[in-house]
Amino acid sequence: MTAAVVLFGHGARDPEWARPMEAVRDAMVQADPGIAVELAYLEFMTPGLGEAVDRLAARGARAITVVPLFLARSGHTKRDLPGLLDAARSAHPRLTIACADPIGEAPEVVQALARYALASAARAPG
Amino acid sequence: MTAAVVLFGHGARDPEWARPMEAVRDAMVQADPGIAVELAYLEFMTPGLGEAVDRLAARGARAITVVPLFLARSGHTKRDLPGLLDAARSAHPRLTIACADPIGEAPEVVQALARYALASAARAPG
Repeated sequence: MTAAVVLFGHGARDPEWARPMEAVRDAMVQADPGIAVELAYLEFMTPGLGEAVDRLAARGARAITVVPLFLARSGHTKRDLPGLLDAARSAHPRLTIACADPIGEAPEVVQALARYALASAARAPG
Repeated sequence: MTAAVVLFGHGARDPEWARPMEAVRDAMVQADPGIAVELAYLEFMTPGLGEAVDRLAARGARAITVVPLFLARSGHTKRDLPGLLDAARSAHPRLTIACADPIGEAPEVVQALARYALASAARAPG
């Protein structure tokens, strides 16, 4: 594999909630067929972060990047996620596990969201 | 104004949470200085959606597009948001208030998130 990524999202009771995360994973694999991507959820859905890391380790990953699909820094990314990362690192001491910024901290994502909002307004009636 | 938009997000106890929404607003205004953008939050932060719509109406907006800065469809966008939209429409019967899809339902946003995740993995050590 070229790289290994966990897309980490909040999760929800509604199964439809996972669809955009699946779409991001599919777009990543389409752009780079050698990449290994697992989805993981903080709550309501499975797998959790630990199990997703286990799966990537079992697939032979040596370095994993966790990308939080959270808009912004909050208790979830400041407190919950570091604890989960620590547990995963303890479980896999030979793995390198890095963590990216939440999506809304990435300037290129901010630009994409701004373009989407502007296009939505341009499409609206009135 | 060229258009009026409410960026509607979840909100959080942590004031830092609002920063990406502010960055999206700033990027929109930079791209289109004639646009009017207000931020609104479901919980923990103010203003709420109704107050943001009031502000845009007071600024002369006739048509408003609400853009949910939620990754996916869930109880928040399926139940909470429609009720808030109904209340805003009742309060402003002469305003047209449209609502866009959550960000993760937009293919161009999915592509941007995939690119960000791939770039994060490429930057990671190991």
